[in-house]
Amino acid sequence: MSLALELATRAGALDFERFDPEAIKWAKQAMADMVGCALLGANTDTTTMAIEAGAFPPGNCLVLGRKMRLGKLEAAFVNGTSGHALDYDDTSKSLSGHPTVIIVPGLLALAEELGSTGRDFVDAYIVGVETATRMARGLNFYHYEKGWHPTATLGIFGAIAAAARLMRLSEKQMADALCIGASLACGVKANFGTPVKPMHAGLAARNGLFAALLAQEGFEASPTALEGKQGFLEVFNGAGNYNVDKMLDGWARPLDLLEPGISIKKYPCVYSVHGAIDAAIALQAAIKPADVESVMVRMHPRRMLPHVLNPATSALNAKFSLSYAVSRALVNGAVTLDHFEDDALHDTDVVRIMNLIQMKPLEDLSHDYGAEVTVTLKDGSTLTNFVAAPLGRGPEVPMPETMLAAKFLDCADRAVTRQSAQTVFEMLMALDTLPSMRDLTAEINAGTLK
Amino acid sequence: MSLALELATRAGALDFERFDPEAIKWAKQAMADMVGCALLGANTDTTTMAIEAGAFPPGNCLVLGRKMRLGKLEAAFVNGTSGHALDYDDTSKSLSGHPTVIIVPGLLALAEELGSTGRDFVDAYIVGVETATRMARGLNFYHYEKGWHPTATLGIFGAIAAAARLMRLSEKQMADALCIGASLACGVKANFGTPVKPMHAGLAARNGLFAALLAQEGFEASPTALEGKQGFLEVFNGAGNYNVDKMLDGWARPLDLLEPGISIKKYPCVYSVHGAIDAAIALQAAIKPADVESVMVRMHPRRMLPHVLNPATSALNAKFSLSYAVSRALVNGAVTLDHFEDDALHDTDVVRIMNLIQMKPLEDLSHDYGAEVTVTLKDGSTLTNFVAAPLGRGPEVPMPETMLAAKFLDCADRAVTRQSAQTVFEMLMALDTLPSMRDLTAEINAGTLK
Repeated sequence: MSLALELATRAGALDFERFDPEAIKWAKQAMADMVGCALLGANTDTTTMAIEAGAFPPGNCLVLGRKMRLGKLEAAFVNGTSGHALDYDDTSKSLSGHPTVIIVPGLLALAEELGSTGRDFVDAYIVGVETATRMARGLNFYHYEKGWHPTATLGIFGAIAAAARLMRLSEKQMADALCIGASLACGVKANFGTPVKPMHAGLAARNGLFAALLAQEGFEASPTALEGKQGFLEVFNGAGNYNVDKMLDGWARPLDLLEPGISIKKYPCVYSVHGAIDAAIALQAAIKPADVESVMVRMHPRRMLPHVLNPATSALNAKFSLSYAVSRALVNGAVTLDHFEDDALHDTDVVRIMNLIQMKPLEDLSHDYGAEVTVTLKDGSTLTNFVAAPLGRGPEVPMPETMLAAKFLDCADRAVTRQSAQTVFEMLMALDTLPSMRDLTAEINAGTLK
Repeated sequence: MSLALELATRAGALDFERFDPEAIKWAKQAMADMVGCALLGANTDTTTMAIEAGAFPPGNCLVLGRKMRLGKLEAAFVNGTSGHALDYDDTSKSLSGHPTVIIVPGLLALAEELGSTGRDFVDAYIVGVETATRMARGLNFYHYEKGWHPTATLGIFGAIAAAARLMRLSEKQMADALCIGASLACGVKANFGTPVKPMHAGLAARNGLFAALLAQEGFEASPTALEGKQGFLEVFNGAGNYNVDKMLDGWARPLDLLEPGISIKKYPCVYSVHGAIDAAIALQAAIKPADVESVMVRMHPRRMLPHVLNPATSALNAKFSLSYAVSRALVNGAVTLDHFEDDALHDTDVVRIMNLIQMKPLEDLSHDYGAEVTVTLKDGSTLTNFVAAPLGRGPEVPMPETMLAAKFLDCADRAVTRQSAQTVFEMLMALDTLPSMRDLTAEINAGTLK
């Protein structure tokens, strides 16, 4: 059996009834988070330029956060681009990338067209994540390190499997769609740090949906376009640099959504500093900024990259600055979008504490994303707090729903009314019971500001 | 200076006034040939499935050979797919692929929107071919042999440069567009022999145009996304497998269109047998089929692949069969589309001669595509003819315009009226004097059958 048919058969054997309720909860949280990120990104320059460059004719599918409907491929493109515009969406360890922003945009456009139920939507999403992350296990981290952008180049297979599932394609058709995907995967890491990066996500979302639609029409690909001569594995990774067994061993036992799981970002800045922010926020209530004498932050040395160790001098590099993030957390007890806008980085208290911060590696290296913050006050007393991993980093440290809601509202405020944002968040948290996905898109559309 | 800016600067320095008239003639012939191929491919299953899968909303740009207008990106996609649907379009030795089918679709949609002159259209095409083929010189044949489909993965840079030229983007913008292209290039050879192959062409045409449109809107990419770390050269070919000097040395002196030039296919079958067809056609007038006793065909051994040596047993494998092609040429003095349709391969005379054909390698191996046909008649006399290269294979053996016209009409007959086809061909042969490209698309549209 060809690899694509093997994957399609395994995907076809997944059964919503048997999914662990924890996996369904994570799926809903990840999708809600992605919708929030797309609402946030909808009116960025990146998204606006992508829309204006395309000059797409109007269609029937909602563009999140804009009073605009496009054809389903173009809606998927724009929603994928806006969902990743600020790099604030979830990440998967297996994928070394962002799974949800590739899968949801195509599914949403399809579901709106088909009038799919929320349950089928969640089901298709889970199938998509499992397919992309399992393929990634056999290709990473070589694939990532070589220079491919796995969010796009591997995520596309998740978008394909999810769309094929929602359309109820046969296993043969899903296999054809995956093999078409071998010819549509693209995106190089050289373009990281530019608007091309989020556009990769939009394009992969669009092309993943398109591959499934082509297969539905009867478009056939080479059945061995993944593992065969001059196929995906050989051309993208090269002989000796992939392992098909790792894709298939332990398939769905448990779902990759549960082990190793997905991480949701709570703060709109680089993930490396999230642990330190969590550690600092817990100390904030006990501290007056004016009393701080010095601060020591310890992290795993792998996180202490040059751009992380620099102080903030611009709204852009503030997003990477450990000292700015920790200072904000100690002063405000939160790190939110408006802390990276306009003149926020010139706040007097924040600048003073930022300049008092020292950084050292942790001595215990068993916590990849662990962080310890120690504050010394002017009276000589010290307060210290250690977190082993940021909240939201996988199933062991789930993000409380209140935090997820706060992030969602912070993001959604840029594009929809507060009331609508609250309603939409509630719908997303109960997505598996929603009669029609059109109810969700109608609610978002009704609340959209412009 | 970054490689992309170097290429954009050199492209920007090209000047229509200084182009060799021979290059302009080849440009017009190649573009006319591509339009003919797209008219032929417009109503194939491949194109129809691609259109139906996309369900593209209507727009303002013509789909060649159909009563249909789409947005410019989608028109480029469909015209690229139909132009390559039958693999009957021109080839470039430098590219190891099909240059024109990637460049013309985006240009045509743009030119229709902008109301560009025919002269600017020809100019932009020449800039596109030079850019793609020069880049290819530094990447091939490793790139091809690794499994990439250069028509798409290198041709996209020609589509980008051509569109940027027609839009009069700055050199900085063209450089950005080329660097965006590093993230859009895709297509693996594992999907050869399936409808995905022509779809590669459509997607590259679309994405090349899109990259230029994004750059026009201000989208910026990494300036070194071609030659930098984790950029196009490194990720697609790998260190040691490319040579930037080969891209730049001798740029446009002469244009790649003139040396080594473009090959135009005259017959709707595999290129390997075209020399033998030419050799046989020249003998046909002197032969009655019933008098033939035996036939010997000699070709370069590199052309004598297993699928070429087999007799024809189906309309599909007839396209690769040397003995079928030579027999057709000896019986009909032509090899046309209808010879590969329905029951044509059961023609009594053709089958009889096909079974009399023997094949041997040429002794003189200096002619890659050379062929010799020797016919022995029942009276013992022999006729023999050798061609060093098929007509249409580069500037040394130009295809007479009458042959190009015959091919164009044979192709166009499937989609437009004969009268319109003749008018369109005349417009294409005088393209550099056409006041507006809208005149061309209006004429094609008016003559389209359905």
